[in-house]
Amino acid sequence: MITQATCQQLDQQDPLAPIREQFNLPPNVIYLDGNSLGAQPKAAIQRAQQVIEQEWGDKLIGSWNSAGWFDLPSRLGDLLAPLIGAKSSEVVLTDSTSINLFKTLAAGLKIQAEKHPQRKVIVTERINFPTDLYMIQGITEWLNQGYQLQLIDTTEELYTAINDDTALVLLTQVNYRTGELLDMQALTAHAHKHDVLTIWDLCHSAGAVPIDLNGCNADFAVGCTYKYLNGGPGAPAFIWIAERHQTAFTHPLSGWWGHNAPFAMQAEFTPTKTIRRALCGTQPIVSLALVEVGLSTFEQTNINAVRGKSLALTDLFIALVAQECGTHGLSLVTPTEHAKRGSHVSYMHPHAYPIIQALIKRGVIGDYREPQVARFGFTPLYTSYMDVWNAVQALKHILDNNDYEIHAPRNAVT
Amino acid sequence: MITQATCQQLDQQDPLAPIREQFNLPPNVIYLDGNSLGAQPKAAIQRAQQVIEQEWGDKLIGSWNSAGWFDLPSRLGDLLAPLIGAKSSEVVLTDSTSINLFKTLAAGLKIQAEKHPQRKVIVTERINFPTDLYMIQGITEWLNQGYQLQLIDTTEELYTAINDDTALVLLTQVNYRTGELLDMQALTAHAHKHDVLTIWDLCHSAGAVPIDLNGCNADFAVGCTYKYLNGGPGAPAFIWIAERHQTAFTHPLSGWWGHNAPFAMQAEFTPTKTIRRALCGTQPIVSLALVEVGLSTFEQTNINAVRGKSLALTDLFIALVAQECGTHGLSLVTPTEHAKRGSHVSYMHPHAYPIIQALIKRGVIGDYREPQVARFGFTPLYTSYMDVWNAVQALKHILDNNDYEIHAPRNAVT
Repeated sequence: MITQATCQQLDQQDPLAPIREQFNLPPNVIYLDGNSLGAQPKAAIQRAQQVIEQEWGDKLIGSWNSAGWFDLPSRLGDLLAPLIGAKSSEVVLTDSTSINLFKTLAAGLKIQAEKHPQRKVIVTERINFPTDLYMIQGITEWLNQGYQLQLIDTTEELYTAINDDTALVLLTQVNYRTGELLDMQALTAHAHKHDVLTIWDLCHSAGAVPIDLNGCNADFAVGCTYKYLNGGPGAPAFIWIAERHQTAFTHPLSGWWGHNAPFAMQAEFTPTKTIRRALCGTQPIVSLALVEVGLSTFEQTNINAVRGKSLALTDLFIALVAQECGTHGLSLVTPTEHAKRGSHVSYMHPHAYPIIQALIKRGVIGDYREPQVARFGFTPLYTSYMDVWNAVQALKHILDNNDYEIHAPRNAVT
Repeated sequence: MITQATCQQLDQQDPLAPIREQFNLPPNVIYLDGNSLGAQPKAAIQRAQQVIEQEWGDKLIGSWNSAGWFDLPSRLGDLLAPLIGAKSSEVVLTDSTSINLFKTLAAGLKIQAEKHPQRKVIVTERINFPTDLYMIQGITEWLNQGYQLQLIDTTEELYTAINDDTALVLLTQVNYRTGELLDMQALTAHAHKHDVLTIWDLCHSAGAVPIDLNGCNADFAVGCTYKYLNGGPGAPAFIWIAERHQTAFTHPLSGWWGHNAPFAMQAEFTPTKTIRRALCGTQPIVSLALVEVGLSTFEQTNINAVRGKSLALTDLFIALVAQECGTHGLSLVTPTEHAKRGSHVSYMHPHAYPIIQALIKRGVIGDYREPQVARFGFTPLYTSYMDVWNAVQALKHILDNNDYEIHAPRNAVT
């Protein structure tokens, strides 16, 4: 039997607990949606003032050099690198996840077209986040060279689907809906056995799960910075290219920021030899600068400590829901095995949408995902064990009393 | 003879003069680089606080709907529309200019490939901003379908170069280096006579020159918001698609924001029928929201009043430089004819780079562009006639006294 006292004690013993104070969290809200939009670090407002008033306002055009605006994509890449097992020369922050997916797909197809021109299949999971599917669909239809998108239904089937006919495999490490964590090491090794290039989407894992891109010998990766990395709404994404692929990494988004000599104003595009060849056009500096604040928070701890608390929080939530709401028809979607779980927990329920709405009304913010999925994210930097207790009590109250109005889902954002 | 008193009088009679107070301009600085990075509207800081503390911090994930984050690209497009002669349903703010160029190039090539499969030439000017050339180069090389980039050396030659072999023409309305303003009406009409689709890059004209995209019957346009529109460093760009082309506008950057039902999480990409099909992934909300502040400034005046003052400022600058610095070897690059001039003025000089550095040291911020070009931008919302007087006096002092150190150019940003 887990009690409120158990949760209070866990908070008292939690070495990460003090970090919560660095976030602006509204009173009377239990925020279990940091897997969709990370909370606001208090320091973000000072950084915004600095960028807007001092860098933009006072120093004007000079800030491209003096405030290091032009170098921000690589400087923030250096800050992110340790969280994803990257070298600092391998990752930049830029553009959106979708755009970065396009770059990796384009570069990957090009490399494979030269090596294995007969390979026409791009493998991914049917339950991958839709934009991943759409970007594959976009590039294959547009190229019109016989490329096919192959959608796989189970993790096990991935191992047979990835074979000598496969050009690329694009996988999201933690699924946005189920919370399942894929085995990056094993899947990458399997892909490489068949000379298949891997693109890893880290949107739902970066900042929550220890990632070792180089340890796994991965090829390319992308991800967003506005979920567990707390970079701010829609903050620029990242793109990682393994060092060994950088010379061959070519894509058609050859904007001037990826040029070898961007200020020489040459008529001919010559890509830089560095990771900056993944850049395209001018970046949104205010949004980009704010990511630094989110990333800096991680310097006070380490990703293994974050992962430890994440597993403790999700374990606790699963156990408490079973204990308190066990008879109410919630069906756990997320794997219980630690090695297969990210940092959010999902349940199916025929009334998942109205239940989530009722929870939000009571200050417990989770979210709804089609079809019939109630999703709860646990962000160790600012979620407490008592948050878990209180959230489950609210859920129990709603379910015990049928305290929700049944109606159809409205829009929500990942 | 133009005197200081003339300039003072012009300021006293200037109906736009009071708007300058709404910008954060450092004391003792004459800012003639708003054509590269527009100055900071004072209201930007309050808007940033609102987005960061209230929308992100307090309302968290709910702000995607309640603060209208998801609708920002189209809402800001509506604000921009009157400045460029667009309908509000034709323009969105999103991504970078380079990325938006790619979308228009991809869509344009696709339309023409179906209509005129033998046409393989994309025409542009050799002196176009490099990223425009690079994006054409990127898409043609990557497609590897025989497309060629044709670089034209003079405006007159454009009329012969754009012919029945041409698929697309990509032109920048105001050249970043020379300040020359192209005749959008005539060039578009000429292109259409040959069934050529036009892409207009409005980076150096939007917010400075009255633009009538629909009046010119243009096809596609892109542009940035951080120059004359004062949206902030690297703020998201815009993309305009003439209504008649929207159904046929397809591009491979088919991210979820362009989906017909983005929240239904469907596996299949079905583009929305609206201008939002030009969107791809999640947008950087803080940077995007700040563009509203820059655009709102224009609601206090109208683009014709802005243009009138712009021409008066550039006329005055050209006349004063001739009067005060006439013997110092400055060679005017910018056309003197009003119909051919944007809102910046450029001179060639063998020591253009050190001269610009010496001006900056004295608080007069212009910029240098390869090769040997000193460039001065005039932004009617906050540049005064006395700014022009003082800038020319500083230039005169530097030239009269050879008060600059000759050295090679360093990096700068457009």
